[in-house]
Amino acid sequence: MPGLAPGIHVFEASHGGKGSWMAGTGPAMTMSFAGIISMSSTVSPLAPTDVPAMPAIAGVRLATAEAGIRYKNRTDVLLAVMDKGTAVAGVFTKSKCPSAPVEWCRAKLRGGKARALVVNSGNANAFTGKTGRQSTALTAAIAAKAVGCSQNEIFLASTGVIGEPLDASKFNGVLGRLADIAEPGDWMAAARAIMTTDTFPKVATRTVKLGKARVTINGMAKGAGMIMPDMATMLSFVFTDAPIAPAALQALLRSGVEDTFNAVTIDGDTSTSDTLLAFATGAAAAHGAPKISRAGDPRLKAFVKAFREVLGDLAEQVARDGEGARKLVEITVEGAVSKASARRIAMSIANSPLVKTAIAGEDANWGRVVMAVGKAGEPANRDKLSIAFNGIRVAKSGARDPSYDEAEVSEAMKAPKVAIKVSLGLGKGRDRVLTCDLTKEYVAINGDYRS
Amino acid sequence: MPGLAPGIHVFEASHGGKGSWMAGTGPAMTMSFAGIISMSSTVSPLAPTDVPAMPAIAGVRLATAEAGIRYKNRTDVLLAVMDKGTAVAGVFTKSKCPSAPVEWCRAKLRGGKARALVVNSGNANAFTGKTGRQSTALTAAIAAKAVGCSQNEIFLASTGVIGEPLDASKFNGVLGRLADIAEPGDWMAAARAIMTTDTFPKVATRTVKLGKARVTINGMAKGAGMIMPDMATMLSFVFTDAPIAPAALQALLRSGVEDTFNAVTIDGDTSTSDTLLAFATGAAAAHGAPKISRAGDPRLKAFVKAFREVLGDLAEQVARDGEGARKLVEITVEGAVSKASARRIAMSIANSPLVKTAIAGEDANWGRVVMAVGKAGEPANRDKLSIAFNGIRVAKSGARDPSYDEAEVSEAMKAPKVAIKVSLGLGKGRDRVLTCDLTKEYVAINGDYRS
Repeated sequence: MPGLAPGIHVFEASHGGKGSWMAGTGPAMTMSFAGIISMSSTVSPLAPTDVPAMPAIAGVRLATAEAGIRYKNRTDVLLAVMDKGTAVAGVFTKSKCPSAPVEWCRAKLRGGKARALVVNSGNANAFTGKTGRQSTALTAAIAAKAVGCSQNEIFLASTGVIGEPLDASKFNGVLGRLADIAEPGDWMAAARAIMTTDTFPKVATRTVKLGKARVTINGMAKGAGMIMPDMATMLSFVFTDAPIAPAALQALLRSGVEDTFNAVTIDGDTSTSDTLLAFATGAAAAHGAPKISRAGDPRLKAFVKAFREVLGDLAEQVARDGEGARKLVEITVEGAVSKASARRIAMSIANSPLVKTAIAGEDANWGRVVMAVGKAGEPANRDKLSIAFNGIRVAKSGARDPSYDEAEVSEAMKAPKVAIKVSLGLGKGRDRVLTCDLTKEYVAINGDYRS
Repeated sequence: MPGLAPGIHVFEASHGGKGSWMAGTGPAMTMSFAGIISMSSTVSPLAPTDVPAMPAIAGVRLATAEAGIRYKNRTDVLLAVMDKGTAVAGVFTKSKCPSAPVEWCRAKLRGGKARALVVNSGNANAFTGKTGRQSTALTAAIAAKAVGCSQNEIFLASTGVIGEPLDASKFNGVLGRLADIAEPGDWMAAARAIMTTDTFPKVATRTVKLGKARVTINGMAKGAGMIMPDMATMLSFVFTDAPIAPAALQALLRSGVEDTFNAVTIDGDTSTSDTLLAFATGAAAAHGAPKISRAGDPRLKAFVKAFREVLGDLAEQVARDGEGARKLVEITVEGAVSKASARRIAMSIANSPLVKTAIAGEDANWGRVVMAVGKAGEPANRDKLSIAFNGIRVAKSGARDPSYDEAEVSEAMKAPKVAIKVSLGLGKGRDRVLTCDLTKEYVAINGDYRS
């Protein structure tokens, strides 16, 4: 898990290009952001301090550009080109009003094969009616021509404002040029191009053995508000050179999100655009990786662990970049009647404005935690409830813990990470979710975003 | 429905006593608050400008005092004494971790009769374990002795901090003195004594014919945060001199809350203490009001309407005093598959932090309304959806309304009340909920409340 940055750093607003996120790659370096113009001028104090060097993934080439969708002087379109035979899997928002790109991807997933991914920031192409469907079709047509493949192998994602028509003609020429210059290269630049209110790009990587071959998993994510994924976060893309068949990849993805992206909430608001796509180029087969057709294949064990680590790492970074966040909050519920019950109680706590504002105020207000447990509607017995903040038990057996020292707890609440543990004492159900605090900055960011 | 105050008024912090809420009783007077020391020093700009003159209710006597539960220099305990034969009904929080007074009242409701109500502010006596149950028993014993009745006719409510033991011995002497001085009188003083973060006392009254007699309904409420009642608001008490049997009163109350208190949310957080009690002294029988034993009695028609108006009026005042609120927000959902579905969608919109912060920013951000419709999980068809803000349609048939004028909408959003209407185009289900915006002040109030 990434560590914590000691303070807030200001972006260096140079434009586009392929500047590295970091000045160096040591474990405790100063951050120097390049290539980003964001709505936010400061980086979350919870941003990871050590950002991994992202290796190339055989069979994947990347390029970014300024298409002028909404922002000025920053990249806003990413093209990822995959080799022939790349398998694709995806999970999407459960919103009843999904964006046009979500509907496009759902339809194209049936083929199981991908040649390109086009992502734009600045406009979500959501709630844009017939125009939205025309935009996705036009974007896919331009991309298919640029890459030289069928439109059925093009995957699309858009993020940004809802309800504004997306002028896909802006991709004309742009995607062709990107297809020409795409190279195995710059994952940080790719992660930057898909940001909206994010204050830092989010990437993760793992390399593991599959059979006797080494395979790599790279992932990126964006998202800072409207985050309570209900199958996936707003946008996240994971790539691997492992040779995994589409159905197996889909199964891995579906089980992988449950305790990662689906266990994160910023504000309880589920986006219309949540999209998590995984691409497996299979290029590692050339140096001996076995071809995998079942998610349950025992040879996949190390891969599954690494794959979930990548998803978990990205999901935690999303929580660390919650709009206005100053505290990362980890909520563990144990002793529930089931894992599902523990999840609902943990989410009730994580989405409570009163709990979140108390944490912003560094107040170990366990009374509000009791309230959130009580309103979850799940089995709970007040007189068996215990609650701890950062390892200090403040309540037990349905009342204040007589041994608890207010000064000690207050000191502990100053840490940038606050762990709340609730023990229900009913059964063996346990779950964990991540969120962040609710600050005045969240209100400021979201009171001014559109206008 | 009350009108809107033009601005923010500062409390005059004189102490205790029976000062009137208002300097006068005309429809457009300046407010002059007396007798309140609140955590908040300003009155909500949404406070009603015309506060009703509260008539006496035959069979009810009131008194307030400073018991020093938590606050200094303000009243924090209310005693209401009712004549023998008073019927009582109640609805309470659905929280799985209810407060000790809620458990007390639930048990005592079985008798259907009440002689006294004791309410304290400053301490909710919630999550206080065995000590909490001892506190309620001691309070009831002191009150029963003071009034001269059985403990089974004592009803209790507490509001304030959760998890702190309530020292009920502070009521010793106090309740006896209050029982001596109680008089038919000062409803405003009563409403003030039960406030916590409320910025104004909340009262409502109606007088109607029951048979040939006139009967009166008086109500009071408190609540400003931790408000998403799940049977009732935090605390509300309604009194009438109508002769209505307990079972009939209970039926009236249960149906009455559905579209009033249960249709209000401030922050989606359901209190451990939500309590709504109704008392019917029956004193009006002496001047000819018929004794009512069934809620469906046709003679009750005007009474039922007035009773719901009192509940609705109080519930709206709770929304108007939402912590940090600057806008009253009315959300109407029509064309849903059922009323229950419309309610769930309306609540999803009302509890969305992104919708609420947009309204604070006076931004008609209908994209976020779409998001909230989508995440509700109820039947909705994006391409049939229409949305209007304060009567101006901004979206229709799943896309931006081409005729909508951004400047006109921006102007309309400056009003202190924002009405959002969502038309789903699926069926005849319709519902309406009230909420308020989410401002930096909400975060400030709740980041500092306990410490």
